[in-house]
Amino acid sequence: MRIALKIEYMGTRFCGSQFQVGVRTVQDELEKALGTFLRSPTGRAKVIFSGRTDTGVHARGQVVHFDFDEPLDLWRLCWALNGILPEDVSVQAAQVMPDEFHSRFSAIKRTYAYRILNQPQRSALFKQTHHFLPLKLNLPLMAELAAQILGTHDFSGFKSSNSDTGTAVCRVERSEILNLGEGKLEFWISANHFVYNMVRIIVGTLIDIGLGKLPTSSLGEALHDRQRRKAGPTAPPWGLCLEQVEYPDSYQLFESASFQESTRDNQEIDRE
Amino acid sequence: MRIALKIEYMGTRFCGSQFQVGVRTVQDELEKALGTFLRSPTGRAKVIFSGRTDTGVHARGQVVHFDFDEPLDLWRLCWALNGILPEDVSVQAAQVMPDEFHSRFSAIKRTYAYRILNQPQRSALFKQTHHFLPLKLNLPLMAELAAQILGTHDFSGFKSSNSDTGTAVCRVERSEILNLGEGKLEFWISANHFVYNMVRIIVGTLIDIGLGKLPTSSLGEALHDRQRRKAGPTAPPWGLCLEQVEYPDSYQLFESASFQESTRDNQEIDRE
Repeated sequence: MRIALKIEYMGTRFCGSQFQVGVRTVQDELEKALGTFLRSPTGRAKVIFSGRTDTGVHARGQVVHFDFDEPLDLWRLCWALNGILPEDVSVQAAQVMPDEFHSRFSAIKRTYAYRILNQPQRSALFKQTHHFLPLKLNLPLMAELAAQILGTHDFSGFKSSNSDTGTAVCRVERSEILNLGEGKLEFWISANHFVYNMVRIIVGTLIDIGLGKLPTSSLGEALHDRQRRKAGPTAPPWGLCLEQVEYPDSYQLFESASFQESTRDNQEIDRE
Repeated sequence: MRIALKIEYMGTRFCGSQFQVGVRTVQDELEKALGTFLRSPTGRAKVIFSGRTDTGVHARGQVVHFDFDEPLDLWRLCWALNGILPEDVSVQAAQVMPDEFHSRFSAIKRTYAYRILNQPQRSALFKQTHHFLPLKLNLPLMAELAAQILGTHDFSGFKSSNSDTGTAVCRVERSEILNLGEGKLEFWISANHFVYNMVRIIVGTLIDIGLGKLPTSSLGEALHDRQRRKAGPTAPPWGLCLEQVEYPDSYQLFESASFQESTRDNQEIDRE
């Protein structure tokens, strides 16, 4: 039986999502907690992520899957895991999936948000989730440029040089800057595929253009010339959050997540 | 010379705002940082708060004042204090005020927000600033009742019993529940005066009515009968944030806070 979990984590104190020997990772915490709940003889249970997130990057809607061959109460699974897991990682939902479902290979769209706090002085409240920028940004210009990324492009110019090979062609369905007021800005991007550090390099380029450090043409040039050196720096990880991973509609993944109370109410109504 | 500061803090690791011997408080950190910057012989500088906040309560717009008789570069003051202060407290703005200004006695309105995360499973990202409620709330009912608090009432029924004396009559100008989606709820309240624990007892009462644990009439009864036992429990402190303290318009407090860049641009324009 294949089970999908929706995971949330604060990336601050994790060395990224994927298991590495000797450091604290989301995968390690999750595999230990699941192993405890499932009473695995090894104390662990193997979990597959939809994709990796770097050190310091957060997630509201990471998706993972694992296999288990005995009956499971999914509600108890969520509550028990949230009791065992440390406070900076939590399980939001669980669902039984067909065997061919794969958290990574079945995904058709991922959405990230990059949060910026653009105000004169540093914040005590939003330090862990926002990139603090005390210099005034040219927001209308940045918003206009963000829209240039929409559509299908080769993003080789926005790929970290030491990253693995594979296609850099991505179809971007959303790319916009939201001004939430009081200095809070958010860059939202959705695509079928991302290359390594793509969101952070796009944001770093938009910021440097917004500060007047890079010419307005740099974003388009990096996109068309596919040269990393034409783009701006990689923005820091703590502003980035993996918001959502989407799958074909036929899976109906996490569509029915609701309060246990509602379920109980419905059962009572059924009985009447 | 009297100087007002706008202060932000994450209340999680503070035993409240006001100085107490032997525990970590916002006032203690601020007085030590200011003493360092001002080269005070005692290593401290006395600071007066607009009002106290309890252990665990946050602030985005706390206002304090202090006196100092030598010339001060306010921009350098903010940056230097933010360099000296620990990461969970920061200074957002500084302004020279008339001598009769008093952060506490000149205040005419205070605004608090109480943040609730109403979703089935606990959050890894919003734990420090939201009260997590995994049971479904009757939001339309709560929103309707919140409006009952508007206007001038005696709030003795919403005052912690061990609190000091003084009038419990408060003029409430705003009392509303916002549904931000994805389980995020905010209760916003503005008044000329608050009694001790008033916001948290109002929220605790609204929540218990929203869960069906208390009859719908309890809020109105606690208000009219002025009896603490008719109201609900005191909601936990970590959802509460002092958002803003307001003063008479004539003070123009923190109206001109802006980026140093803007100032420099203006100066350049003036020179042309």
